[in-house]
Amino acid sequence: MTAESYLESKRLAFEPELEKNLEAVLRKVPAKLAEAMRYGVLGGGKRLRPVLALAAAEVVGKGPAPESAVRYGCAVEMIHAYSLIHDDLPAMDDDDLRRGRPTAHRAFGEAMAILAGDGLLTEAFALTASLPDPLGAALCRELALGAGAAGMVGGQALDIAATGTRGLPAAEIERIHGGKTGALIAAAAAGGALCGGASAAQAGQLRRYGEALGMAFQAADDLLDVVGDPDQRGKRSGGDEVEEKATLVGALGVDGTRARAQALAEAACDAVASLDGSQLLRDLALYAASRSR
Amino acid sequence: MTAESYLESKRLAFEPELEKNLEAVLRKVPAKLAEAMRYGVLGGGKRLRPVLALAAAEVVGKGPAPESAVRYGCAVEMIHAYSLIHDDLPAMDDDDLRRGRPTAHRAFGEAMAILAGDGLLTEAFALTASLPDPLGAALCRELALGAGAAGMVGGQALDIAATGTRGLPAAEIERIHGGKTGALIAAAAAGGALCGGASAAQAGQLRRYGEALGMAFQAADDLLDVVGDPDQRGKRSGGDEVEEKATLVGALGVDGTRARAQALAEAACDAVASLDGSQLLRDLALYAASRSR
Repeated sequence: MTAESYLESKRLAFEPELEKNLEAVLRKVPAKLAEAMRYGVLGGGKRLRPVLALAAAEVVGKGPAPESAVRYGCAVEMIHAYSLIHDDLPAMDDDDLRRGRPTAHRAFGEAMAILAGDGLLTEAFALTASLPDPLGAALCRELALGAGAAGMVGGQALDIAATGTRGLPAAEIERIHGGKTGALIAAAAAGGALCGGASAAQAGQLRRYGEALGMAFQAADDLLDVVGDPDQRGKRSGGDEVEEKATLVGALGVDGTRARAQALAEAACDAVASLDGSQLLRDLALYAASRSR
Repeated sequence: MTAESYLESKRLAFEPELEKNLEAVLRKVPAKLAEAMRYGVLGGGKRLRPVLALAAAEVVGKGPAPESAVRYGCAVEMIHAYSLIHDDLPAMDDDDLRRGRPTAHRAFGEAMAILAGDGLLTEAFALTASLPDPLGAALCRELALGAGAAGMVGGQALDIAATGTRGLPAAEIERIHGGKTGALIAAAAAGGALCGGASAAQAGQLRRYGEALGMAFQAADDLLDVVGDPDQRGKRSGGDEVEEKATLVGALGVDGTRARAQALAEAACDAVASLDGSQLLRDLALYAASRSR
Protein backbone atom coordinates (compact mmCIF):
# COMPACT_ATOMS: atom_id res chain seq x y z
CA MET A 1 0.00 0.00 0.00
CA THR A 2 1.36 3.47 -0.83
CA ALA A 3 1.59 6.13 1.86
CA GLU A 4 -1.14 8.09 0.13
CA SER A 5 -3.59 5.17 0.06
CA TYR A 6 -2.73 4.30 3.69
CA LEU A 7 -3.50 7.89 4.72
CA GLU A 8 -6.75 7.85 2.77
CA SER A 9 -8.01 4.52 4.12
CA LYS A 10 -7.12 5.47 7.71
CA ARG A 11 -8.72 8.88 7.28
CA LEU A 12 -11.96 7.29 6.12
CA ALA A 13 -11.99 4.91 9.09
CA PHE A 14 -11.09 7.69 11.52
CA GLU A 15 -13.70 10.21 10.38
CA PRO A 16 -16.73 8.54 12.07
CA GLU A 17 -14.67 8.02 15.27
CA LEU A 18 -13.84 11.71 15.31
CA GLU A 19 -17.47 12.64 14.83
CA LYS A 20 -18.60 10.24 17.56
CA ASN A 21 -16.05 11.48 20.10
CA LEU A 22 -16.77 15.10 19.25
CA GLU A 23 -20.52 14.66 19.65
CA ALA A 24 -19.95 13.10 23.08
CA VAL A 25 -17.87 16.15 24.01
CA LEU A 26 -20.56 18.54 22.74
CA ARG A 27 -23.50 16.95 24.55
CA LYS A 28 -23.77 19.56 27.31
CA VAL A 29 -22.38 22.50 25.33
CA PRO A 30 -24.57 25.54 24.46
CA ALA A 31 -26.01 25.07 20.96
CA LYS A 32 -24.35 27.95 19.12
CA LEU A 33 -20.93 27.22 20.59
CA ALA A 34 -21.32 23.52 19.80
CA GLU A 35 -22.17 24.39 16.21
CA ALA A 36 -19.06 26.53 15.82
CA MET A 37 -16.85 23.82 17.36
CA ARG A 38 -18.35 21.16 15.09
CA TYR A 39 -17.83 23.41 12.06
CA GLY A 40 -14.18 23.83 12.94
CA VAL A 41 -13.48 20.12 13.35
CA LEU A 42 -15.71 18.37 10.83
CA GLY A 43 -15.17 20.49 7.72
CA GLY A 44 -12.82 18.09 5.95
CA GLY A 45 -9.08 18.02 6.41
CA LYS A 46 -6.38 15.46 5.78
CA ARG A 47 -6.39 14.13 9.39
CA LEU A 48 -2.65 13.72 9.04
CA ARG A 49 -1.99 14.11 12.79
CA PRO A 50 -4.38 11.43 14.06
CA VAL A 51 -3.38 9.05 11.27
CA LEU A 52 0.25 9.50 12.30
CA ALA A 53 -0.74 8.75 15.89
CA LEU A 54 -2.42 5.55 14.69
CA ALA A 55 0.56 4.60 12.52
CA ALA A 56 2.96 5.15 15.43
CA ALA A 57 0.78 3.00 17.70
CA GLU A 58 0.67 0.25 15.06
CA VAL A 59 4.40 0.22 14.47
CA VAL A 60 5.40 0.33 18.13
CA GLY A 61 2.65 -2.06 19.27
CA LYS A 62 3.18 -4.42 16.31
CA GLY A 63 -0.55 -4.71 15.69
CA PRO A 64 -3.77 -2.72 15.28
CA ALA A 65 -3.82 0.64 17.08
CA PRO A 66 -5.70 0.45 20.40
CA GLU A 67 -8.80 2.50 21.21
CA SER A 68 -6.67 4.89 23.27
CA ALA A 69 -4.78 5.91 20.11
CA VAL A 70 -8.07 6.68 18.36
CA ARG A 71 -9.25 8.84 21.27
CA TYR A 72 -5.87 10.56 21.50
CA GLY A 73 -5.98 11.15 17.73
CA CYS A 74 -9.35 12.88 18.17
CA ALA A 75 -7.86 15.13 20.84
CA VAL A 76 -4.90 16.02 18.62
CA GLU A 77 -7.23 16.82 15.73
CA MET A 78 -9.38 19.04 17.99
CA ILE A 79 -6.24 20.96 18.91
CA HIS A 80 -5.26 21.26 15.26
CA ALA A 81 -8.78 22.55 14.46
CA TYR A 82 -8.61 25.13 17.27
CA SER A 83 -5.24 26.36 15.99
CA LEU A 84 -6.65 26.87 12.50
CA ILE A 85 -9.67 28.79 13.85
CA HIS A 86 -7.47 31.14 15.86
CA ASP A 87 -4.89 31.49 13.05
CA ASP A 88 -7.56 32.56 10.61
CA LEU A 89 -8.83 35.40 12.85
CA PRO A 90 -8.62 38.98 11.54
CA ALA A 91 -5.96 39.84 14.15
CA MET A 92 -3.85 36.87 12.99
CA ASP A 93 -3.74 35.77 9.32
CA ASP A 94 -7.15 37.31 8.48
CA ASP A 95 -8.25 34.51 6.16
CA ASP A 96 -11.75 34.26 4.70
CA LEU A 97 -11.50 30.74 3.31
CA ARG A 98 -10.41 27.44 4.84
CA ARG A 99 -10.91 24.05 3.18
CA GLY A 100 -13.05 25.74 0.54
CA ARG A 101 -15.56 27.20 3.04
CA PRO A 102 -15.82 30.46 4.99
CA THR A 103 -13.49 30.49 8.00
CA ALA A 104 -15.13 30.08 11.42
CA HIS A 105 -15.16 33.79 12.25
CA ARG A 106 -16.73 34.51 8.86
CA ALA A 107 -19.44 31.94 9.57
CA PHE A 108 -20.03 32.57 13.31
CA GLY A 109 -18.49 35.94 14.13
CA GLU A 110 -15.18 36.63 15.81
CA ALA A 111 -16.27 36.22 19.43
CA MET A 112 -17.77 32.78 18.81
CA ALA A 113 -14.72 31.73 16.77
CA ILE A 114 -12.37 32.68 19.63
CA LEU A 115 -14.54 30.74 22.09
CA ALA A 116 -14.89 27.73 19.77
CA GLY A 117 -11.09 27.55 19.65
CA ASP A 118 -10.80 27.89 23.42
CA GLY A 119 -13.45 25.21 23.87
CA LEU A 120 -11.79 22.75 21.49
CA LEU A 121 -8.42 23.19 23.15
CA THR A 122 -9.85 22.60 26.61
CA GLU A 123 -12.02 19.65 25.59
CA ALA A 124 -9.05 18.01 23.89
CA PHE A 125 -7.44 17.81 27.33
CA ALA A 126 -10.68 16.55 28.87
CA LEU A 127 -10.79 13.74 26.32
CA THR A 128 -7.12 12.86 26.81
CA ALA A 129 -7.30 12.99 30.62
CA SER A 130 -10.22 10.56 30.54
CA LEU A 131 -7.98 7.77 29.22
CA PRO A 132 -6.96 5.20 31.86
CA ASP A 133 -4.09 5.97 34.27
CA PRO A 134 -1.18 6.34 33.85
CA LEU A 135 -1.63 6.84 30.10
CA GLY A 136 -4.03 9.80 30.51
CA ALA A 137 -1.59 12.07 32.33
CA ALA A 138 1.36 11.07 30.12
CA LEU A 139 -0.63 11.92 27.00
CA CYS A 140 -1.76 15.24 28.52
CA ARG A 141 1.90 16.10 29.09
CA GLU A 142 2.79 15.11 25.51
CA LEU A 143 -0.11 17.12 24.10
CA ALA A 144 0.71 20.22 26.16
CA LEU A 145 4.38 19.98 25.17
CA GLY A 146 3.40 19.99 21.50
CA ALA A 147 0.58 22.52 21.63
CA GLY A 148 1.97 24.85 24.29
CA ALA A 149 3.86 28.10 24.50
CA ALA A 150 7.24 26.46 23.82
CA GLY A 151 5.66 24.43 20.96
CA MET A 152 2.84 25.30 18.57
CA VAL A 153 1.70 28.54 20.22
CA GLY A 154 5.32 29.66 20.51
CA GLY A 155 5.83 28.98 16.80
CA GLN A 156 2.76 31.04 15.98
CA ALA A 157 4.08 33.90 18.08
CA LEU A 158 7.43 33.77 16.24
CA ASP A 159 5.56 33.59 12.92
CA ILE A 160 3.50 36.69 13.75
CA ALA A 161 6.60 38.55 14.89
CA ALA A 162 8.47 37.60 11.69
CA THR A 163 5.65 38.65 9.37
CA GLY A 164 6.81 41.52 7.19
CA THR A 165 10.49 40.85 7.95
CA ARG A 166 12.52 40.47 4.77
CA GLY A 167 15.56 38.26 4.43
CA LEU A 168 14.97 36.03 7.45
CA PRO A 169 17.56 33.20 7.33
CA ALA A 170 16.35 29.65 6.66
CA ALA A 171 17.36 28.53 10.16
CA GLU A 172 15.05 31.12 11.74
CA ILE A 173 12.20 30.12 9.44
CA GLU A 174 12.72 26.49 10.38
CA ARG A 175 12.59 27.41 14.06
CA ILE A 176 9.14 28.84 13.33
CA HIS A 177 8.14 25.72 11.37
CA GLY A 178 9.38 23.45 14.14
CA GLY A 179 7.08 25.24 16.53
CA LYS A 180 3.96 25.99 14.56
CA THR A 181 3.84 22.70 12.63
CA GLY A 182 6.48 20.30 13.93
CA ALA A 183 5.61 20.35 17.62
CA LEU A 184 2.00 19.15 17.40
CA ILE A 185 2.90 16.49 14.83
CA ALA A 186 5.69 15.37 17.16
CA ALA A 187 3.12 15.10 19.96
CA ALA A 188 0.79 13.12 17.68
CA ALA A 189 3.49 10.59 16.82
CA ALA A 190 4.97 10.31 20.32
CA GLY A 191 1.55 10.07 21.99
CA GLY A 192 0.41 7.44 19.52
CA ALA A 193 3.57 5.49 20.28
CA LEU A 194 2.78 5.66 24.02
CA CYS A 195 -0.67 4.24 23.27
CA GLY A 196 1.10 1.37 21.50
CA GLY A 197 3.19 0.71 24.62
CA ALA A 198 6.34 2.64 23.70
CA SER A 199 9.23 3.02 26.14
CA ALA A 200 10.33 6.57 26.93
CA ALA A 201 13.21 6.10 24.47
CA GLN A 202 10.85 4.95 21.69
CA ALA A 203 8.48 7.85 22.38
CA GLY A 204 11.49 10.14 22.04
CA GLN A 205 12.33 8.60 18.65
CA LEU A 206 8.77 9.15 17.47
CA ARG A 207 8.83 12.72 18.80
CA ARG A 208 11.94 13.48 16.73
CA TYR A 209 10.38 11.69 13.75
CA GLY A 210 7.18 13.73 14.04
CA GLU A 211 9.00 17.01 14.39
CA ALA A 212 11.13 16.41 11.28
CA LEU A 213 8.12 15.12 9.33
CA GLY A 214 6.14 18.20 10.41
CA MET A 215 8.90 20.51 9.23
CA ALA A 216 9.07 18.63 5.91
CA PHE A 217 5.29 18.98 5.65
CA GLN A 218 5.53 22.72 6.29
CA ALA A 219 8.33 23.12 3.74
CA ALA A 220 6.04 21.40 1.23
CA ASP A 221 3.28 23.80 2.28
CA ASP A 222 5.47 26.80 1.53
CA LEU A 223 6.18 25.25 -1.89
CA LEU A 224 2.52 24.53 -2.61
CA ASP A 225 1.61 28.11 -1.78
CA VAL A 226 3.76 29.09 -4.77
CA VAL A 227 3.37 26.19 -7.20
CA GLY A 228 0.22 24.38 -5.97
CA ASP A 229 -3.31 24.18 -7.35
CA PRO A 230 -5.71 26.37 -5.31
CA ASP A 231 -8.70 24.12 -6.17
CA GLN A 232 -6.98 21.13 -4.59
CA ARG A 233 -5.91 23.13 -1.53
CA GLY A 234 -9.23 24.87 -0.75
CA LYS A 235 -7.51 28.20 -0.23
CA ARG A 236 -5.91 30.77 -2.47
CA SER A 237 -2.30 30.44 -3.62
CA GLY A 238 0.26 33.17 -3.14
CA GLY A 239 -1.29 33.94 0.27
CA ASP A 240 2.08 33.87 1.99
CA GLU A 241 3.39 36.66 -0.18
CA VAL A 242 0.24 38.77 0.23
CA GLU A 243 0.50 38.34 4.01
CA GLU A 244 4.26 39.01 3.88
CA LYS A 245 4.99 35.69 5.58
CA ALA A 246 8.59 34.64 5.96
CA THR A 247 8.75 31.36 3.98
CA LEU A 248 11.39 28.81 3.08
CA VAL A 249 10.79 29.54 -0.60
CA GLY A 250 11.71 33.14 0.12
CA ALA A 251 14.94 32.02 1.77
CA LEU A 252 15.96 29.01 -0.37
CA GLY A 253 14.02 29.34 -3.65
CA VAL A 254 11.73 26.64 -5.09
CA ASP A 255 14.43 24.05 -5.80
CA GLY A 256 16.23 24.71 -2.54
CA THR A 257 13.00 24.28 -0.59
CA ARG A 258 12.20 21.04 -2.40
CA ALA A 259 15.65 19.66 -1.53
CA ARG A 260 15.28 20.80 2.07
CA ALA A 261 11.87 19.11 2.39
CA GLN A 262 13.47 15.89 1.18
CA ALA A 263 16.35 16.21 3.64
CA LEU A 264 13.91 16.76 6.51
CA ALA A 265 11.92 13.69 5.49
CA GLU A 266 15.14 11.69 5.52
CA ALA A 267 15.95 12.99 9.01
CA ALA A 268 12.50 11.76 10.06
CA CYS A 269 13.29 8.34 8.57
CA ASP A 270 16.62 8.22 10.39
CA ALA A 271 14.93 8.91 13.73
CA VAL A 272 12.92 5.70 13.49
CA ALA A 273 15.36 3.57 11.46
CA SER A 274 16.13 1.32 14.44
CA LEU A 275 12.46 0.44 15.03
CA ASP A 276 11.18 -2.88 13.66
CA GLY A 277 8.58 -2.38 10.95
CA SER A 278 9.25 1.32 10.48
CA GLN A 279 8.84 1.19 6.69
CA LEU A 280 5.31 2.59 6.99
CA LEU A 281 6.58 5.57 9.00
CA ARG A 282 9.37 6.17 6.49
CA ASP A 283 6.94 6.09 3.57
CA LEU A 284 4.68 8.60 5.33
CA ALA A 285 7.58 10.99 5.94
CA LEU A 286 8.67 10.88 2.29
CA TYR A 287 5.08 11.46 1.19
CA ALA A 288 4.69 14.49 3.50
CA ALA A 289 7.70 16.12 1.84
CA SER A 290 6.64 15.55 -1.76
CA ARG A 291 2.85 15.83 -1.58
CA SER A 292 0.95 17.78 -4.22
CA ARG A 293 -1.87 18.97 -1.92
CA MET B 1 -9.18 35.32 61.50
CA THR B 2 -11.77 36.96 59.25
CA ALA B 3 -12.32 35.65 55.71
CA GLU B 4 -10.84 38.85 54.32
CA SER B 5 -7.62 38.56 56.34
CA TYR B 6 -7.36 34.82 55.51
CA LEU B 7 -7.65 35.64 51.79
CA GLU B 8 -5.07 38.38 52.09
CA SER B 9 -2.51 36.33 54.03
CA LYS B 10 -2.90 33.35 51.67
CA ARG B 11 -2.68 35.61 48.64
CA LEU B 12 0.58 37.08 49.90
CA ALA B 13 2.05 33.62 50.50
CA PHE B 14 0.79 32.33 47.13
CA GLU B 15 2.07 35.20 44.99
CA PRO B 16 5.78 34.12 44.96
CA GLU B 17 4.73 30.48 44.30
CA LEU B 18 2.73 31.64 41.31
CA GLU B 19 5.63 33.65 39.99
CA LYS B 20 8.06 30.75 40.49
CA ASN B 21 5.83 28.21 38.73
CA LEU B 22 5.08 30.61 35.91
CA GLU B 23 8.76 31.38 35.34
CA ALA B 24 9.48 27.64 35.14
CA VAL B 25 6.74 27.34 32.51
CA LEU B 26 8.11 30.28 30.53
CA ARG B 27 11.73 29.11 30.41
CA LYS B 28 11.65 27.89 26.80
CA VAL B 29 8.97 30.27 25.53
CA PRO B 30 9.77 32.96 22.89
CA ALA B 31 10.51 36.26 24.67
CA LYS B 32 7.62 38.39 23.45
CA LEU B 33 5.03 35.67 24.09
CA ALA B 34 6.50 35.02 27.53
CA GLU B 35 6.24 38.71 28.32
CA ALA B 36 2.57 38.83 27.34
CA MET B 37 1.80 35.69 29.36
CA ARG B 38 3.61 37.09 32.41
CA TYR B 39 1.74 40.40 32.05
CA GLY B 40 -1.58 38.57 32.04
CA VAL B 41 -0.88 36.50 35.15
CA LEU B 42 1.24 38.72 37.38
CA GLY B 43 -0.62 42.02 37.17
CA GLY B 44 -2.31 41.77 40.57
CA GLY B 45 -5.65 40.12 41.19
CA LYS B 46 -7.37 38.72 44.24
CA ARG B 47 -6.15 35.11 43.65
CA LEU B 48 -9.52 33.96 44.93
CA ARG B 49 -9.48 30.69 42.95
CA PRO B 50 -6.10 29.36 44.11
CA VAL B 51 -6.80 30.46 47.68
CA LEU B 52 -10.07 28.53 47.58
CA ALA B 53 -8.17 25.50 46.28
CA LEU B 54 -5.78 25.83 49.22
CA ALA B 55 -8.64 26.29 51.69
CA ALA B 56 -10.43 23.21 50.32
CA ALA B 57 -7.22 21.16 50.62
CA GLU B 58 -6.73 22.36 54.21
CA VAL B 59 -10.27 21.60 55.30
CA VAL B 60 -10.46 18.17 53.65
CA GLY B 61 -6.89 17.18 54.58
CA LYS B 62 -7.18 18.62 58.11
CA GLY B 63 -3.80 20.28 57.88
CA PRO B 64 -1.61 22.50 55.72
CA ALA B 65 -2.34 22.32 51.98
CA PRO B 66 0.16 20.05 50.16
CA GLU B 67 2.48 21.22 47.39
CA SER B 68 0.12 19.69 44.80
CA ALA B 69 -2.61 22.16 45.82
CA VAL B 70 -0.22 25.06 45.34
CA ARG B 71 0.74 23.83 41.85
CA TYR B 72 -2.90 23.19 40.97
CA GLY B 73 -3.79 26.67 42.25
CA CYS B 74 -1.19 28.12 39.87
CA ALA B 75 -2.77 26.23 36.97
CA VAL B 76 -6.25 27.47 37.90
CA GLU B 77 -5.00 31.05 38.11
CA MET B 78 -3.30 30.72 34.70
CA ILE B 79 -6.65 29.63 33.27
CA HIS B 80 -8.39 32.53 34.96
CA ALA B 81 -5.79 34.92 33.51
CA TYR B 82 -6.23 33.48 30.00
CA SER B 83 -10.00 33.91 30.26
CA LEU B 84 -9.61 37.58 31.21
CA ILE B 85 -7.20 38.21 28.31
CA HIS B 86 -9.61 36.68 25.79
CA ASP B 87 -12.69 38.35 27.36
CA ASP B 88 -11.11 41.76 27.07
CA LEU B 89 -10.44 41.39 23.32
CA PRO B 90 -12.12 43.85 20.93
CA ALA B 91 -14.31 41.07 19.51
CA MET B 92 -15.47 40.16 23.03
CA ASP B 93 -15.95 42.84 25.74
CA ASP B 94 -13.53 45.31 24.14
CA ASP B 95 -12.07 46.57 27.41
CA ASP B 96 -9.07 48.91 27.60
CA LEU B 97 -8.37 48.61 31.32
CA ARG B 98 -7.94 45.63 33.63
CA ARG B 99 -6.68 45.87 37.21
CA GLY B 100 -5.87 49.52 36.58
CA ARG B 101 -3.52 48.80 33.63
CA PRO B 102 -3.98 48.53 29.85
CA THR B 103 -5.50 45.19 28.88
CA ALA B 104 -3.15 42.66 27.25
CA HIS B 105 -4.22 43.43 23.67
CA ARG B 106 -3.72 47.15 24.36
CA ALA B 107 -0.23 46.44 25.64
CA PHE B 108 0.89 43.71 23.18
CA GLY B 109 -1.50 43.82 20.23
CA GLU B 110 -4.43 41.52 19.52
CA ALA B 111 -2.53 38.65 17.93
CA MET B 112 -0.10 38.33 20.83
CA ALA B 113 -2.97 38.60 23.34
CA ILE B 114 -4.85 35.75 21.66
CA LEU B 115 -1.68 33.63 21.68
CA ALA B 116 -0.84 34.53 25.29
CA GLY B 117 -4.29 33.27 26.28
CA ASP B 118 -3.87 30.09 24.25
CA GLY B 119 -0.44 29.55 25.76
CA LEU B 120 -1.61 30.03 29.36
CA LEU B 121 -4.53 27.64 28.88
CA THR B 122 -2.28 24.94 27.43
CA GLU B 123 0.50 25.39 29.97
CA ALA B 124 -2.03 25.17 32.81
CA PHE B 125 -2.71 21.62 31.66
CA ALA B 126 1.01 20.90 31.33
CA LEU B 127 1.53 22.00 34.94
CA THR B 128 -1.44 19.99 36.20
CA ALA B 129 -0.53 16.86 34.24
CA SER B 130 2.98 16.95 35.73
CA LEU B 131 1.59 16.21 39.22
CA PRO B 132 2.09 12.59 40.36
CA ASP B 133 -0.31 9.87 39.14
CA PRO B 134 -3.20 9.37 39.61
CA LEU B 135 -3.74 12.93 40.89
CA GLY B 136 -2.48 14.57 37.68
CA ALA B 137 -5.09 13.07 35.38
CA ALA B 138 -7.92 13.57 37.90
CA LEU B 139 -7.03 17.24 38.26
CA CYS B 140 -6.80 17.64 34.46
CA ARG B 141 -10.34 16.27 34.22
CA GLU B 142 -11.57 18.61 36.97
CA LEU B 143 -9.88 21.60 35.33
CA ALA B 144 -11.27 20.79 31.88
CA LEU B 145 -14.74 20.28 33.31
CA GLY B 146 -14.63 23.74 34.86
CA ALA B 147 -12.86 25.60 32.05
CA GLY B 148 -14.39 23.78 29.10
CA ALA B 149 -17.18 24.25 26.60
CA ALA B 150 -19.86 23.04 29.03
CA GLY B 151 -18.32 25.20 31.79
CA MET B 152 -16.53 28.53 31.63
CA VAL B 153 -16.23 28.81 27.84
CA GLY B 154 -19.88 27.78 27.49
CA GLY B 155 -20.88 30.51 29.96
CA GLN B 156 -18.92 33.05 27.95
CA ALA B 157 -20.68 31.95 24.78
CA LEU B 158 -24.08 32.34 26.46
CA ASP B 159 -23.01 35.73 27.81
CA ILE B 160 -21.98 36.95 24.35
CA ALA B 161 -25.24 35.66 22.86
CA ALA B 162 -27.28 37.39 25.59
CA THR B 163 -25.53 40.75 25.24
CA GLY B 164 -28.02 43.36 24.06
CA THR B 165 -31.01 41.19 25.02
CA ARG B 166 -33.39 43.04 27.31
CA GLY B 167 -35.52 41.43 30.01
CA LEU B 168 -33.60 38.16 30.34
CA PRO B 169 -35.03 36.27 33.33
CA ALA B 170 -32.87 35.84 36.43
CA ALA B 171 -32.65 32.07 35.92
CA GLU B 172 -31.10 32.53 32.47
CA ILE B 173 -28.64 35.07 33.82
CA GLU B 174 -27.69 32.66 36.57
CA ARG B 175 -27.11 29.93 34.00
CA ILE B 176 -24.58 32.28 32.41
CA HIS B 177 -23.01 33.07 35.80
CA GLY B 178 -22.81 29.38 36.68
CA GLY B 179 -20.79 28.82 33.51
CA LYS B 180 -18.62 31.87 33.18
CA THR B 181 -17.78 32.26 36.89
CA GLY B 182 -19.11 29.29 38.85
CA ALA B 183 -17.57 26.46 36.85
CA LEU B 184 -13.89 27.39 37.25
CA ILE B 185 -14.34 28.24 40.94
CA ALA B 186 -16.04 24.86 41.35
CA ALA B 187 -13.01 23.23 39.71
CA ALA B 188 -10.68 25.18 42.00
CA ALA B 189 -12.46 24.00 45.14
CA ALA B 190 -13.00 20.40 44.01
CA GLY B 191 -9.45 20.05 42.70
CA GLY B 192 -8.01 21.51 45.88
CA ALA B 193 -10.08 19.01 47.85
CA LEU B 194 -8.65 16.15 45.75
CA CYS B 195 -5.14 17.40 46.60
CA GLY B 196 -6.18 17.16 50.25
CA GLY B 197 -7.20 13.54 49.75
CA ALA B 198 -10.95 14.01 49.19
CA SER B 199 -13.22 11.08 48.32
CA ALA B 200 -15.28 11.46 45.15
CA ALA B 201 -18.28 12.41 47.31
CA GLN B 202 -16.32 15.10 49.13
CA ALA B 203 -14.97 16.46 45.84
CA GLY B 204 -18.60 16.65 44.68
CA GLN B 205 -19.53 18.65 47.80
CA LEU B 206 -16.70 21.07 47.16
CA ARG B 207 -17.69 21.33 43.50
CA ARG B 208 -21.22 22.37 44.47
CA TYR B 209 -19.82 24.71 47.10
CA GLY B 210 -17.51 26.35 44.57
CA GLU B 211 -20.23 26.74 41.97
CA ALA B 212 -22.62 28.44 44.41
CA LEU B 213 -19.82 30.61 45.81
CA GLY B 214 -18.84 31.57 42.28
CA MET B 215 -22.39 32.57 41.44
CA ALA B 216 -22.60 34.60 44.66
CA PHE B 217 -19.31 36.24 43.70
CA GLN B 218 -20.65 37.10 40.26
CA ALA B 219 -23.90 38.47 41.72
CA ALA B 220 -21.73 40.71 43.93
CA ASP B 221 -19.79 41.70 40.80
CA ASP B 222 -22.99 42.78 39.07
CA LEU B 223 -23.83 44.84 42.16
CA LEU B 224 -20.36 46.41 42.37
CA ASP B 225 -20.57 47.44 38.73
CA VAL B 226 -23.50 49.66 39.78
CA VAL B 227 -22.66 50.71 43.34
CA GLY B 228 -18.91 50.00 43.64
CA ASP B 229 -15.89 52.30 43.76
CA PRO B 230 -14.01 52.24 40.40
CA ASP B 231 -10.69 53.13 42.12
CA GLN B 232 -10.91 50.00 44.25
CA ARG B 233 -11.91 47.83 41.30
CA GLY B 234 -9.29 48.97 38.77
CA LYS B 235 -11.90 49.27 36.03
CA ARG B 236 -14.71 51.65 35.28
CA SER B 237 -18.16 51.27 36.84
CA GLY B 238 -21.32 51.05 34.78
CA GLY B 239 -19.44 49.01 32.18
CA ASP B 240 -22.14 46.34 32.12
CA GLU B 241 -24.76 48.88 31.04
CA VAL B 242 -22.50 50.43 28.40
CA GLU B 243 -21.80 46.92 27.02
CA GLU B 244 -25.52 46.03 27.29
CA LYS B 245 -24.69 43.01 29.44
CA ALA B 246 -27.58 41.04 30.90
CA THR B 247 -27.02 41.39 34.67
CA LEU B 248 -28.76 40.23 37.82
CA VAL B 249 -29.23 43.88 38.85
CA GLY B 250 -31.17 44.39 35.62
CA ALA B 251 -33.40 41.43 36.45
CA LEU B 252 -33.75 41.72 40.25
CA GLY B 253 -32.77 45.28 41.14
CA VAL B 254 -30.06 46.24 43.65
CA ASP B 255 -31.81 44.93 46.77
CA GLY B 256 -33.01 41.78 45.03
CA THR B 257 -29.47 41.03 43.79
CA ARG B 258 -28.02 41.61 47.26
CA ALA B 259 -30.53 39.13 48.72
CA ARG B 260 -29.82 36.63 45.97
CA ALA B 261 -26.07 36.83 46.53
CA GLN B 262 -26.68 36.07 50.21
CA ALA B 263 -28.93 33.10 49.34
CA LEU B 264 -26.28 31.70 46.98
CA ALA B 265 -23.62 32.03 49.68
CA GLU B 266 -25.90 30.12 52.05
CA ALA B 267 -26.34 27.39 49.41
CA ALA B 268 -22.54 27.17 49.25
CA CYS B 269 -22.41 26.83 53.06
CA ASP B 270 -25.05 24.10 52.97
CA ALA B 271 -23.04 22.09 50.43
CA VAL B 272 -20.14 21.70 52.88
CA ALA B 273 -22.08 21.76 56.16
CA SER B 274 -21.42 18.06 56.81
CA LEU B 275 -17.62 18.45 56.53
CA ASP B 276 -15.61 18.76 59.74
CA GLY B 277 -13.97 22.14 60.08
CA SER B 278 -15.92 23.78 57.27
CA GLN B 279 -16.31 27.11 59.14
CA LEU B 280 -13.47 28.60 57.05
CA LEU B 281 -15.23 27.64 53.81
CA ARG B 282 -18.51 29.08 55.07
CA ASP B 283 -16.86 32.36 56.04
CA LEU B 284 -15.27 32.61 52.59
CA ALA B 285 -18.63 32.07 50.86
CA LEU B 286 -20.36 34.75 52.92
CA TYR B 287 -17.49 37.13 52.22
CA ALA B 288 -17.68 36.50 48.44
CA ALA B 289 -21.33 37.55 48.48
CA SER B 290 -20.93 40.75 50.48
CA ARG B 291 -17.51 41.99 49.37
CA SER B 292 -16.97 45.66 48.60
CA ARG B 293 -14.30 45.16 45.90
